[in-house]
Amino acid sequence: MSNKKETFVQDITPKSQDFSQWYTDVVRKAEMADYTMIKGCMVIRPYGYAIWELMQQAMDRRIKATGHVNAYFPLFIPESLLKKEAEHVEGFAPEVAWVTHGGKEELEERLAIRPTSEAIICSMYSKWVRSWRDLPILINQWCNVVRWEKVTRPFLRTTEFLWQEGHTVHATEEEAEAEVLRMLDVYRDFVETELAVPLIYGLKTDREKFAGALRTYAIEAMMWDGKALRAGTSHHLGQNFSKAFDIRFEDQNQQIQYAWTTSWGSTTRLIGALIMAHGDDSGLILPPRVAPVQAVIIPIAAANWQETVLPAAQRLLRDLLVSGFRAKLDDRDAYTPGWKYSDWEMRGVPVRIEIGPKDIAKNQVVLVRRDNRKKEFVPMEEAGVRLKSMLDSLQQDLYDRAKQHLQTHTFEIDSYSELVKAMEESRGFAVSPWCGSETCEAKVKEETGATVRVIPVSQPVTKKACVVCGNAGKYHVYFAKSY
Amino acid sequence: MSNKKETFVQDITPKSQDFSQWYTDVVRKAEMADYTMIKGCMVIRPYGYAIWELMQQAMDRRIKATGHVNAYFPLFIPESLLKKEAEHVEGFAPEVAWVTHGGKEELEERLAIRPTSEAIICSMYSKWVRSWRDLPILINQWCNVVRWEKVTRPFLRTTEFLWQEGHTVHATEEEAEAEVLRMLDVYRDFVETELAVPLIYGLKTDREKFAGALRTYAIEAMMWDGKALRAGTSHHLGQNFSKAFDIRFEDQNQQIQYAWTTSWGSTTRLIGALIMAHGDDSGLILPPRVAPVQAVIIPIAAANWQETVLPAAQRLLRDLLVSGFRAKLDDRDAYTPGWKYSDWEMRGVPVRIEIGPKDIAKNQVVLVRRDNRKKEFVPMEEAGVRLKSMLDSLQQDLYDRAKQHLQTHTFEIDSYSELVKAMEESRGFAVSPWCGSETCEAKVKEETGATVRVIPVSQPVTKKACVVCGNAGKYHVYFAKSY
Repeated sequence: MSNKKETFVQDITPKSQDFSQWYTDVVRKAEMADYTMIKGCMVIRPYGYAIWELMQQAMDRRIKATGHVNAYFPLFIPESLLKKEAEHVEGFAPEVAWVTHGGKEELEERLAIRPTSEAIICSMYSKWVRSWRDLPILINQWCNVVRWEKVTRPFLRTTEFLWQEGHTVHATEEEAEAEVLRMLDVYRDFVETELAVPLIYGLKTDREKFAGALRTYAIEAMMWDGKALRAGTSHHLGQNFSKAFDIRFEDQNQQIQYAWTTSWGSTTRLIGALIMAHGDDSGLILPPRVAPVQAVIIPIAAANWQETVLPAAQRLLRDLLVSGFRAKLDDRDAYTPGWKYSDWEMRGVPVRIEIGPKDIAKNQVVLVRRDNRKKEFVPMEEAGVRLKSMLDSLQQDLYDRAKQHLQTHTFEIDSYSELVKAMEESRGFAVSPWCGSETCEAKVKEETGATVRVIPVSQPVTKKACVVCGNAGKYHVYFAKSY
Repeated sequence: MSNKKETFVQDITPKSQDFSQWYTDVVRKAEMADYTMIKGCMVIRPYGYAIWELMQQAMDRRIKATGHVNAYFPLFIPESLLKKEAEHVEGFAPEVAWVTHGGKEELEERLAIRPTSEAIICSMYSKWVRSWRDLPILINQWCNVVRWEKVTRPFLRTTEFLWQEGHTVHATEEEAEAEVLRMLDVYRDFVETELAVPLIYGLKTDREKFAGALRTYAIEAMMWDGKALRAGTSHHLGQNFSKAFDIRFEDQNQQIQYAWTTSWGSTTRLIGALIMAHGDDSGLILPPRVAPVQAVIIPIAAANWQETVLPAAQRLLRDLLVSGFRAKLDDRDAYTPGWKYSDWEMRGVPVRIEIGPKDIAKNQVVLVRRDNRKKEFVPMEEAGVRLKSMLDSLQQDLYDRAKQHLQTHTFEIDSYSELVKAMEESRGFAVSPWCGSETCEAKVKEETGATVRVIPVSQPVTKKACVVCGNAGKYHVYFAKSY
């Protein structure tokens, strides 16, 4: 039995040895996703998709609680429509998949598969908005988008991915700004609360902002290997799109005005963030709030276990399900308990519940936490209560551990040599004074591979010199290598 | 006020005058959907999408309760993959949208936008299935598909539409057949219970079956104008796809076998079915189980109503929401109660709750049913209980009314002239003996426009002659014109 278990775990490359290979191994072995014959397109397998469904529900609740409604806009964007906003098309054209034929006929105009839906949605808003009474428009959609990527990786960067994209229209710049910050906070709260991933957040630089936006806000997470991951973005689009797509309204003084628009999105790459933030050498560790299986009951097979242990395990399963837990009983006969332990550990199930003949005799069960493997022997009738408290602790501890990791990988940097060294050796966030020039930003990217992840909002003016050029610093910014 | 109301309702063409125009008017005026500049593609607007979300939840529960899990497969299908099953590609190729370019590069192989996902999903199943232990595979996906249609109509037939498609793999033909019938029954139960639309169901003829299937089962509904609408299909694919895509497994006797596969789907066209089955000259009538707003509270504006009526209306709203109703308070100041009545009637809200100064004095509210406009004066504290019972009655009455319509539009037909006459005059289902030949089937279609909607399963052998050729009849089948 112990042999089997060891063989099994060896299928996953240790995290410390090769983080990238560990990631791929875990995604494949835990049946989260699989590669297809189409370049850069993956299948999200049922176990991965079940996580996405839980994430969707939790995100959708937040989106609706802030007054938004869902809708569905077409997959296709005519080329002429995509070209209306100049910066937007310049940013996205290189990544667009083009439909040129419908059935046997060649189309008169090529259709882009949406890389994002500003163009098609704004063309409709232009029809729907007439008066200040029609505002604000607060619409979100859940859909697939396609970006023709050169280098892809399951969840993190794929040609097709799933996401939600909110698109709103407002009467004033202030209202649009409030919306953009509100949704940034929704993302922050979602990722920190549900995924147990701590974040930094702030403004993107002009170089890194959304193509066509006035400004872009983002949340950024820190992965186990010290690389940053953009986990959600919220764009103030100013009047750029309303002018390009003619979204005008009559205000309360009967004046015709261009509206102010925003957009914001979060994607299936958050599943990748989850994996990379919490997993260990044995596989995934899923935060209980988004774990498709929060507790797996494993009966210890002994003589006539099917008459003794199994009925007790089934009763426990029923009780846990009735109490609202996402629980599962692994009663497969062909596998040993040890094999099952490894299998469910790899899938990141937060708590394993062992139940054997001795436990039945003592009217108890054994709860084992996935992250630290600590065991608790608990009376059978307290199983639900104790499970709840173990899941809550685990959720909090995952967050705390990741927070500590974030803090120990955030460095105050005062010189360029320190920045270079940090990016080479320990990675993480290098908090550095920066003068705000694109030249300095580009130099850092070229020489260290790092980019400005965010400019924190409302910081005091720095007195320090830019780490790159030595001129007067403007802000402290977070530099990091990223996914 | 009454003038306003009449003007308002006149925006909708009466059903009896022009059913097709009535449908388009209702879809547009109730803000269910809107046209876009892309041929055959529509926007599902928030009110229409909210119905779809409720339908999805109710369908998804049923799909999961029968042991299926959700996943997500790519949007793209390489041309070579689509061609693997000969009948399948022949059936779908004329309707496929082709991607030929990614960014600036021409692709080596064209990619079909999925018209349905058998090809891509079966190519993955071929990797995943090895042993009888891997079976059955019971996977569903919610996604968008594209079929390049010549003539389109909101919800009923659009170039892009949303659907769920189940794809399952089984060890034996019997298990696959059981699955196909199980899902047909899930569809039947869903449409009858949630949408209050009664159905007939059975086998499709070879001419009408899914391209590549052994056989197709379908549920068919009867619209108000006597035309049939296919509301869901369930396909037994035999070993056609497992042979084309090499889905083999080792059985319990260590023999390699081809698997048996099924697929089944239901789409956003069900929203069209809902509209056409229940609506009236004032607009939509939504079955309470899928109505985004089940009850709308309309305060009667009188002097200082915002101090007297409004607080009572707000308390009522809160109570109804807490009790789990989908309720809304229309406290807009710019519209009269009469205008609001018409507006919400058009949107099909099942129950309107009127509350005015006289009602406050009597501590009562007025419930008004959308379908027959019957009023009930109920004590304020019983509002929730009485609303529940009114919604339940309305759901049942809509079903009963539609059932009666189905029955009065179903005719026993014994001769060809009767069939021709029925299709010309009253439409509906013509239940006719048929010899089973494609020649007779084609003749009916050409001369009357009707097709065989279903061959009811497990019927006694008919003794009557085929209505078309006069030879021995094989089955009684349902002929009808259809959407």
